[in-house]
Amino acid sequence: MDITLLTINNVWMMLCTALVFFMHLGFSLVEIGFTRQKNAINILFKNVFIISIGLILYALIGFNLMYPGSFIGGVMPDYFINLFGLSLPENGLSPAYADGGYTYYTDFLFQGMFAATAATIVSGAVAERIKLSSFMIFTLFYVGLIYPIAGSWQWGGGFLSSLGNQVNELGETIKEAGFYDFAGSTLVHSVGGWAALIAVYLLGSRIGKFKKNGKLGVLPGHNIPLATAGVLILWLGWFGFNGGSVLSAEPGATSLVLVTTCLAAASGGLTAFVVSFTKYKVYDLSMFLNGILGGLVGITAGADQMGITNAIVIGAIAGIIIVFGIAFLDKVKLDDPVGAIPVHLFCGIWGTLAVGIFGKMASWEQLGYQIIGVAAVGTFCLLSSFAILFTIKKTNGLRVSKEEELEGLDIHEHGMDAYPDFRLNQH
Amino acid sequence: MDITLLTINNVWMMLCTALVFFMHLGFSLVEIGFTRQKNAINILFKNVFIISIGLILYALIGFNLMYPGSFIGGVMPDYFINLFGLSLPENGLSPAYADGGYTYYTDFLFQGMFAATAATIVSGAVAERIKLSSFMIFTLFYVGLIYPIAGSWQWGGGFLSSLGNQVNELGETIKEAGFYDFAGSTLVHSVGGWAALIAVYLLGSRIGKFKKNGKLGVLPGHNIPLATAGVLILWLGWFGFNGGSVLSAEPGATSLVLVTTCLAAASGGLTAFVVSFTKYKVYDLSMFLNGILGGLVGITAGADQMGITNAIVIGAIAGIIIVFGIAFLDKVKLDDPVGAIPVHLFCGIWGTLAVGIFGKMASWEQLGYQIIGVAAVGTFCLLSSFAILFTIKKTNGLRVSKEEELEGLDIHEHGMDAYPDFRLNQH
Amino acid sequence: MDITLLTINNVWMMLCTALVFFMHLGFSLVEIGFTRQKNAINILFKNVFIISIGLILYALIGFNLMYPGSFIGGVMPDYFINLFGLSLPENGLSPAYADGGYTYYTDFLFQGMFAATAATIVSGAVAERIKLSSFMIFTLFYVGLIYPIAGSWQWGGGFLSSLGNQVNELGETIKEAGFYDFAGSTLVHSVGGWAALIAVYLLGSRIGKFKKNGKLGVLPGHNIPLATAGVLILWLGWFGFNGGSVLSAEPGATSLVLVTTCLAAASGGLTAFVVSFTKYKVYDLSMFLNGILGGLVGITAGADQMGITNAIVIGAIAGIIIVFGIAFLDKVKLDDPVGAIPVHLFCGIWGTLAVGIFGKMASWEQLGYQIIGVAAVGTFCLLSSFAILFTIKKTNGLRVSKEEELEGLDIHEHGMDAYPDFRLNQH
Repeated sequence: MDITLLTINNVWMMLCTALVFFMHLGFSLVEIGFTRQKNAINILFKNVFIISIGLILYALIGFNLMYPGSFIGGVMPDYFINLFGLSLPENGLSPAYADGGYTYYTDFLFQGMFAATAATIVSGAVAERIKLSSFMIFTLFYVGLIYPIAGSWQWGGGFLSSLGNQVNELGETIKEAGFYDFAGSTLVHSVGGWAALIAVYLLGSRIGKFKKNGKLGVLPGHNIPLATAGVLILWLGWFGFNGGSVLSAEPGATSLVLVTTCLAAASGGLTAFVVSFTKYKVYDLSMFLNGILGGLVGITAGADQMGITNAIVIGAIAGIIIVFGIAFLDKVKLDDPVGAIPVHLFCGIWGTLAVGIFGKMASWEQLGYQIIGVAAVGTFCLLSSFAILFTIKKTNGLRVSKEEELEGLDIHEHGMDAYPDFRLNQH
Repeated sequence: MDITLLTINNVWMMLCTALVFFMHLGFSLVEIGFTRQKNAINILFKNVFIISIGLILYALIGFNLMYPGSFIGGVMPDYFINLFGLSLPENGLSPAYADGGYTYYTDFLFQGMFAATAATIVSGAVAERIKLSSFMIFTLFYVGLIYPIAGSWQWGGGFLSSLGNQVNELGETIKEAGFYDFAGSTLVHSVGGWAALIAVYLLGSRIGKFKKNGKLGVLPGHNIPLATAGVLILWLGWFGFNGGSVLSAEPGATSLVLVTTCLAAASGGLTAFVVSFTKYKVYDLSMFLNGILGGLVGITAGADQMGITNAIVIGAIAGIIIVFGIAFLDKVKLDDPVGAIPVHLFCGIWGTLAVGIFGKMASWEQLGYQIIGVAAVGTFCLLSSFAILFTIKKTNGLRVSKEEELEGLDIHEHGMDAYPDFRLNQH
Repeated sequence: MDITLLTINNVWMMLCTALVFFMHLGFSLVEIGFTRQKNAINILFKNVFIISIGLILYALIGFNLMYPGSFIGGVMPDYFINLFGLSLPENGLSPAYADGGYTYYTDFLFQGMFAATAATIVSGAVAERIKLSSFMIFTLFYVGLIYPIAGSWQWGGGFLSSLGNQVNELGETIKEAGFYDFAGSTLVHSVGGWAALIAVYLLGSRIGKFKKNGKLGVLPGHNIPLATAGVLILWLGWFGFNGGSVLSAEPGATSLVLVTTCLAAASGGLTAFVVSFTKYKVYDLSMFLNGILGGLVGITAGADQMGITNAIVIGAIAGIIIVFGIAFLDKVKLDDPVGAIPVHLFCGIWGTLAVGIFGKMASWEQLGYQIIGVAAVGTFCLLSSFAILFTIKKTNGLRVSKEEELEGLDIHEHGMDAYPDFRLNQH
C-alpha cells in the first residue's frame, strides 16, 4: 500500500479511536445524570474501571481471541520478553503489515475502545444497587471473554460472516453472503444490552421504583445537564464509532456514514420527543435524549448501506421504540435507571434487522441472516451473562444491603460524596 | 483531483464537522450556565431540538436552497425514491464530484452543522421567558429558510460575492471583487444576532431584571463552571468552524487560520478582563469568557486574511466591544441573559468590517463592500425575524405566563427539575 | 517534501494541537472538582487567564526564545510592521519551509499550547489561598521566560540534547547521544511540578488542612463528577500531547505512542486503585483518577520508545508513586489540594528515568543522561520559581487574608458565586 494513503488512513483511525475513547465520558455522564447523586461516585468508579481494565484485558487476551490468525506475531509475545530488551513486532509498525490501511497498533487500540463499551452499557442498567466487587468480576469475564468471542463470530471472520456462502464442488467459494453488522448494533450494543437485561432481572428493582399499589415511584436523575452533555458527547463519539468502522478514510464511505449517523440521531430524538409528547403531554428531555441514542444505535449496523431517507426512517423507528420500550420495561417491572435496555438492546436489534429491510443490502435472504445473527449472539450472551451473574449472585452476592442502597453506595463503598458542599433534598 | 489529496481534505473536513457539531454542547452549557437553574431543562431541550431539526431541515430544504445549481442530483431526489431500492447520488461519493476537495456528503454535513448555529444564538438571548412551542416554530422558519437564503447571497455565489465584479463590453469578467466573509461573522453570527435583537425586543425583559427605581436586578447564572466549560468547548469547536471554512486541508491556510483564531480568542478574553477590571474593579469571569467568544466571532470573517498582529488587535477590539456592549444593552433595557447580542451581533459586525481594515484585503473599496454586506444581511434578518416573531406573538404568543416564569419553565413545560436532589436558594 | 505528506502531517498536528488545547478544560475541571466550591470561580479564572496569556506570550517571546535560530523570519517581525500592510512570513506557509513535516504556524500553535500547561500545573497546587494578582504575575514570568528557556536546552537543540555527543579531532560529531524527553515528562510536567512544590512551601497550607493535634483535616473536593470528566478529558488530550510529539503523522510511531499512552494510563489508574484499596480499605475514586494522570505523565518521556509491557509497567509504578506520594506530602505537611506534585513532579521524574530503564534506549549511560536532565531542569526551576515567588511574597504578598480564605476567593476577588442557586453545607 502507498505510504501516503496508509498515513492518512491511520490518522483517520487514530482520530476515530480518540472519539470512541471519549464516549466513555459520555456514558459516565449519562449514567450519573439519570441516577441519584448518592450513587454518582460509584458509577464514575465503575466507568473509569471499565475503560482501564478493558484496555488491559484486550491487550492481554481479547484482541488475539477476537481476531485469531489475523496477526502473526501479535501482542502476546511481547509480554514475556525481558523488559530491558524490548522487541516490538515489526509487522505491526511497517507499511507492509498494513493491509487494512492502518497499523496493527491502531487496530488494537480502536478495537480495544469498543471492547470496554459492552460493560459500560450494563453499568447503567444495574446502577444504584449492584455490589461494586461483583460488577468488577462480571466485567473481567464479559469484556475479557464474552465480547471478543461473540465478536470473532463476525468481525474475526467467523461463521456468522459466512452464513450464506456457497461453495462449488471444487471447494471454491462462488458466493459470499452472511450476517452484516457494520459497526456493532448487535456485536457491541446488543451484547451489552442482553447482559443488562439478565442483570436487571437477577438484581431486582431499586427500592421505591415499583410500589405495592402498582404505581411507579419517582426516582429522578440528579443532574440532567450532565446527562445531556453525555448524550452530545456520545453523539460526537459516534462520528468515530461508525466513521472508524469503515476501517479506512475512504472518502465516499466515511462521509456517507457520518451523514447517515447524524440524520438517524436527529430523527430518533425528534421522533421520541413527538411520540412521547403525544402520549404524555410533556416536553420530555429524557425521551429526546434517549431517542437520539436509540437512533445512533439503530443506524450502527448499516450506516454504510443507507441513504438519506433510509437513515431518517431508521432513526424515527428507533425513536418510537425508545418511548414504547421504556414504558414496556416499567410494565414488566424491570428497573433500568438509564434506559440502557431500550437504547442498546431494543434499538440494537432493530438496527440489525433494518439492514435486511432498507438500503443497499435489503432482501428477504439478508433479513434471514440478520435474524440468525441477532438470535445467535443473543442466545450466547443471555446464557453466558446468566452463568456469570448467577454464579456471582450465589457466591459474592449481587446486591448491596438495603441500608447501603438507601444511604447511597458512595458513602458505603467509597467513603465520599459527589458534591459534599451541597445540601440535599430528601427522596 | 488526486485521490490521496481528496482523502486527506475529506478527513480534515470531517474532523471540522465533528468539532462544529460539538459547539452545540458548548452553546448549551454557556446558555444554561449563565441562566437560572429553574430554566435549565428548557434551554437544553431547545438546544437538542435545534441541532436535530436543523440537520433534518437542512437535508430537506436548506442545503439545496443555499447552494442552488451547485449540485446536480443532490439530496432531494433520494427522498422520493422507494426506500427499498436505494439510489445514492454517485456524484456525491465519487472523486469526480469532489471539486472542492471533499465529498458532497461531507459538504452537506459541515454546512448543516453551521445552519443550526443561527438558531442556537437566538436561544441564549431569549432564555428564561420564551414559550417553547413559539421558539420551535421560529426555528423551523429561521433555520429552514432565512439562514440558507442569506447564506446563498454570498456562499452560494449570490450577489454579495460579486458586488465589485467588473465586466467588459464582451461580457467577460475582468475583475472579481465583493463582500468577504470567510467563516460567517455576518452570515452565521450576525444572522443569529439580528434575530436575537428582535426577539429580545418583542419579548421584553425577564421579571426582576430592570427595576422600577432604575437599578439592575441581579439574576445570576446558576452554574459558572459549566458556562466556562461551554466557552472552552466553543473555542475548541472554532478550530473546526474556522479551520474547516478553508474547505480543504491546504496546510498554509488551515494553519494560519487556527493561529489567528486562537490569538484573537486569547486577546479578546484578556482585553475584556482588563477593561472590565478597570471599569468595575472586579475580576469578572463572565466578561473574560464573553471576551473570548467575542474575539472568536470577530476573527471569523477574516481568519484567513490576517497576520499575528492583526488577529491580536481584532480580538482586543472585540473584547472592548463586549464590555461596553453588555453595558449598553443594560442601558437601553434590552435583556440578553447570556450576552448573545454583544458576542454574535456586535462582534460579528466588527469582524466583518475588520476585513476591510486589517490584513491582506484591507482597502477603502473592500470596507465599502463589507458595509454593504452587513447592511444587506442585517436588513433581511431584521425584517424576516420581525415578520416571523411578530406573527407568532400575535397568534401563539411569545412569552410564558408570569407564574410560569417565576416558578421556572422546567416544571411547567417539562415536568422535571435539572437537579432534583439539591435544595435551592430563593431569588 | 511531498505536498500530500505535508498536508497529512499538518492535519495530524492540527488535530493534536486542538486536543492539547482541550486539556486546559480538563485541568480546569480537575482543579475545581477537587477543591471547594467557594473557590471555583477563582480557579476557572486562573485557567482561562493562563491559556490566554500563555498563547499571547508565546507569540511575543516564548516561541523564538525556545527555538532560537530555527526560524528565519518568525513571528517577531510581524509585530512591528504596519497593521494595514500585512506581510506574512512566507516561509511559514510554504511547503519549502516545512522541514519537520508541518507548517511554521502549526508548530507555533502546538508548542504554544504546551507552554501554558506549565502554569496550569501550578494553579492546582496553590488553589484556594493564593492571591490572584500574584499568581498572574508569576504566570507571566514562568510561562513567558522559564518554560521556554528550560525547553530550549533540549527541544531547542540545547546542551541537554547533546550531553553524550562525541566529536573527533576534525570536529565532526561521531556519536549523538543525550538526554531524552519525548513529550515532556521533565520539560513540561516537572517544570510545572517544581514550581508547584516551591509555591506550596512558600504559601503554607490551607486553614484546616493540618490540625494542631496532628490529624488531617477533611477539605473534600466539591464536584467529583466534574473532576472525573476533567481526567477523562485530559486522557483524551494526551492523544494529542504525546501523539503530536512525534511531530509528524508517521504511522508506526504515532500508533505506538497512542497505545503506550493509553495502556500506561489504564495501568496507572488500576494500580493506584488496588494499592490504595489495600492501604485504606476503600474504593478511592480520587486515587484512581490521579493514578490515571500519573500513568500518563509517566509514559510521556518515553512513549515512543516503549512496548506494550513496558508501558503497563511504567504506568503501574506511576500508580504506586501516586498513592505513596500523596501520603508523603501529607506527612511533610505540604498542602497540594489536587495532587499536582505527585502527578506532575514525582511521576514526571519517574517517567524521565524510565527512559533509561525500559524500552529501546535503556542503558546505564542513558540513565545517567536522564538523571542529569532531571537535575538540571529541577535546579533551574527550583531556583527561578523561588526567586519569582519569593520576590512576589515580599512585595505583593502571596496569600489572601484569613477572612477571604474562609469566606472563599470567589466572593472577595470576583464578586460572584459558582452556583448561586444552591444552598451550601458548612465546613
